[in-house]
Parts: sequence; C-alpha cells; structure tokens
Amino acid sequence: MTVHPLDDAVRLTPGADGALVGRTTAPYANMVGPFGGTTAAALLHAVELHDDRAGDPVALTVNFAAPIAEGEFRIDTALMRANRTNQHWTMTLTQPNGVMTTATAVFGIRRETWSEVEAVMPDAPAPETLERFPTLEGIPFMRNYDLRYVAGPPPVDGVGQPSSTTTLWARDYPARPLDFAALTALSDIFYPRIYRRLGRPVPAGTISMTTYFHVDAAGLAAVGDDFVLATARGQQYARGYLDQTGQVWSRDGRLLVTTHQIVYYKD
Amino acid sequence: MTVHPLDDAVRLTPGADGALVGRTTAPYANMVGPFGGTTAAALLHAVELHDDRAGDPVALTVNFAAPIAEGEFRIDTALMRANRTNQHWTMTLTQPNGVMTTATAVFGIRRETWSEVEAVMPDAPAPETLERFPTLEGIPFMRNYDLRYVAGPPPVDGVGQPSSTTTLWARDYPARPLDFAALTALSDIFYPRIYRRLGRPVPAGTISMTTYFHVDAAGLAAVGDDFVLATARGQQYARGYLDQTGQVWSRDGRLLVTTHQIVYYKD
Repeated sequence: MTVHPLDDAVRLTPGADGALVGRTTAPYANMVGPFGGTTAAALLHAVELHDDRAGDPVALTVNFAAPIAEGEFRIDTALMRANRTNQHWTMTLTQPNGVMTTATAVFGIRRETWSEVEAVMPDAPAPETLERFPTLEGIPFMRNYDLRYVAGPPPVDGVGQPSSTTTLWARDYPARPLDFAALTALSDIFYPRIYRRLGRPVPAGTISMTTYFHVDAAGLAAVGDDFVLATARGQQYARGYLDQTGQVWSRDGRLLVTTHQIVYYKD
Repeated sequence: MTVHPLDDAVRLTPGADGALVGRTTAPYANMVGPFGGTTAAALLHAVELHDDRAGDPVALTVNFAAPIAEGEFRIDTALMRANRTNQHWTMTLTQPNGVMTTATAVFGIRRETWSEVEAVMPDAPAPETLERFPTLEGIPFMRNYDLRYVAGPPPVDGVGQPSSTTTLWARDYPARPLDFAALTALSDIFYPRIYRRLGRPVPAGTISMTTYFHVDAAGLAAVGDDFVLATARGQQYARGYLDQTGQVWSRDGRLLVTTHQIVYYKD
C-alpha cells in the first residue's frame, strides 16, 4: 500500500527523552523550508499521538520562529493543565540550530449544546465545474493539493486589487480522507494576501497562525475525501505585518475551522 | 500621585530565578477570578519589562488554562528565538496550584512599507452622544471602563438575536493614555457572544485569545486617552465552543488590533 505524501510528512517516531522525531519531505517543500501548514500539522499530530491526549483539537497556535532546515526535527510536547473537558498543551520544534517553532494547543471534549453557524458560506460553483490550478514554479508543495479557485487566484498581471479575498475549493492530491492534520495544513493553504493587493508576489511569510476547530473526529470523517471551501481576506497591512482571517467550510455548509495569521511582508 | 487601577493590576516586581511577581487586584475582579484582559495584559507586560525585549508587540496568544486564584502569581518569560526584526517569546503564569495561563508573543520592529487598512470601520455616532453603560452586578471590573454601546449591548430581555455583533466605544475609567497593556485588556472587553444569540447569560469563559497588534508605541501614543471603537461577532457555536472575531479602531479610523477568541459555553 502506498503511503500518502501527507502521512509521510507528518510521520513522527519516538526519539530521546519522550520527544518525537519527524523530518521534512521533498513533496511539501515551499520556497524557503517546508510548507508551514505541514509543520503545523506535525505539531498538532505530536499531541494526537501523546498517551495523555483526551478529546479533539479545539485551538492551535503555531509561531514560526525560524525557517526549518531540510532534515530531521524534534518535537517536544507538554501537558500544562487539564480539567474534565479541556487540555492545554505546549509544543516546541527544535533542530540542531535551536528552537524553530513554538506552539500551543487546546484539546477538548464536545458536548451537546445549542449550536449554530453564524458566518455565511461564500457562494461558489461546484468544484467539478472548475479547473485545477497549476503548480507554480518554486512551490513544490502545491503538487499535493487540488486547488480550484472560485475568486482571487494568485495574481499574474501586476494589477493590485482593492479586495484581498480569495476563495477556493481545496483537497489533498491524491484525495485523502480529511483528518485534523490535513485540516490544519489546509488552514494555511492561502497565498499571502499582500500579493493580491499589490498584484505581484513580494517577500512574505507567516509568523504566527491560530486555528480554531469546530468539528470533532466524527464530524470530520463525514467530509471524507471531498473538497472543502477555503476563504481568506486581509484586514490590515501595517508597516511590514499583515493579518489574514479565514474560514474552511465543508461542501454541505458546516464551518470546519476559522483560522487567523499574522504575516511578515516587504514591498 | 494616584496610581491608575490598571497600572496597579499589571504591576510586576522581581521574584526568584528571574521571574516576575504580580497579584490579582479587587478592581479587576470578574465573576470567577480576575478579568482575563488584565491577565493577558500582565503577561504581555512581563515581556515589555524584559531586558532583552526589542520592538513592539505584533502577536499575543493567551491560553486560560485554569481560573486564577485571588492573590500572587508568578510569570516566567523565555525568549525562544530572535532575528533582526522579530522575537518569539513564551510565558507561563503560575500559582502554588500549578500553571494557570500559558502564552506566546511575537515582538517586532516595524518598517516603512506599503500599508493600508482593508477592513471597514463600523458606523458609529460619537461617544459623547451616548450614555455610559452601567456596571453589572457581579462584574466589578466594568467599573474601570467607560463603555458606550453603539449596537448589541448585553441582553436583558431573554430574546435571542440572529446576529451576535456588538460594537461599543470603550476606554479606561478614569481615562488613561492607551498603551499596549491597556489595548490588550480592551481586546477582551466583549461579553460572550452566546449571550446575545440566546438573549440571556449562560456559563461561558475564554479558553484562548489571540490578538494581532497593528500599531507601534508612537501610533498608540497618538490615541492618547480617547475612546476606541471595539466590535466583535461570533462565527460558529459548536457543541460547547464558540469563536469570536473582533477589531479595535481608533476614532480616526486606524485599525489598532484584530483579536480572536475561542470560548467555552454551556446552554
């Protein structure tokens, strides 16, 4: 049986002192270092693998402190506090050169309560009616996604736009049943919003990403390997730092995650 | 000279092993434990006081792991990684009973770049034309704020609303020049969005809050002690966890922070 490239990218094996050991993989290479979504997924997965983990992910914050070098990395996890329904975890990803990524996560057990989605799902034609977007040069990890833009594809014309909103259908390629690792990586599927405002790529990179999960494992399983609808927009571009706020929806209108980033940029 | 109650609430003094020691104060008491905004402000302030701190806050994530007990607490800070423009910090707040709060922060140095606000400031009449909202029973910290609701005040009629949006002018009371500690606390000034959807208060508490800062110290100083316009809405209420996304604006239309929370609730 062939291992899906995403499973290979987030694969962790026991290391010294209770740490887990992972490694960057060629399929998820980005322009500099690995795709941040995969790094975030590996950090979340480290908690998922921990014997003391209870419940499903509720919140994940990943701070990209330094570019991860090609090769092995070590993830340390610590359960800082737990109560009956929630767990608070901290994680660090280190390489010989020091700490490259820090993260915190909340895991929790969902209960039956009044529940409702208040945000509005963007209008979008079915993904089957749209073309798959080609992999861009220098961004190898795009090969592992089937991305179908509804609005706001990466700009090619040098013309800046007043709105940074991008909406796209996305799924792993080849298709793979959605789990929390895959959903975490998909939360980082958006190219930098500044590209759209300026109409051209500029140096930019995520510094910190926070994702809130709104489904449990059973809810995710119901998505299967279908496309999800991802949408994001920038709110503020302020002297080298922009923020981005996004949502990922299931085709049947469930808001799976809300996700936010602060991104470094130059112009 | 009288010390402002907020300065007293975030006052930190040197403790053992390089830690800082703070204490809860009666003016910022909430229903259970201290107002989370003040806790977040104290954690940010601990980094501000560190000898190695460079630049201004860019991102802050605070995880409220357990209710802080009345009395002293200890804050430990660690600079995990720094480059020419950004610093990555982790912080923990502990009491004799263990870790109560974990946090991460990014500090950075802003540079001249193309900058623009893309979000739209809510329409609001001048704060001088609105009444100050009274302090609610059991929520003492409200006494230290001058809150003037433009839309979506705390519900009193038991009637649920389809929109959770709340917009209000807010400033410290007595008025106090805005700094990053005060702005952090103001980022948590919203009552739980579920109250508005259900038309009544229910048990609810912030689990994790992420704030992105879009101004430097000079930009904040320009606000002085004026009101800021704060707005928030819920996006998803999902089996015990809701998310909230908010913005804080200066009166002259600068987006000072974007701020997000995941909140525990029962119905």
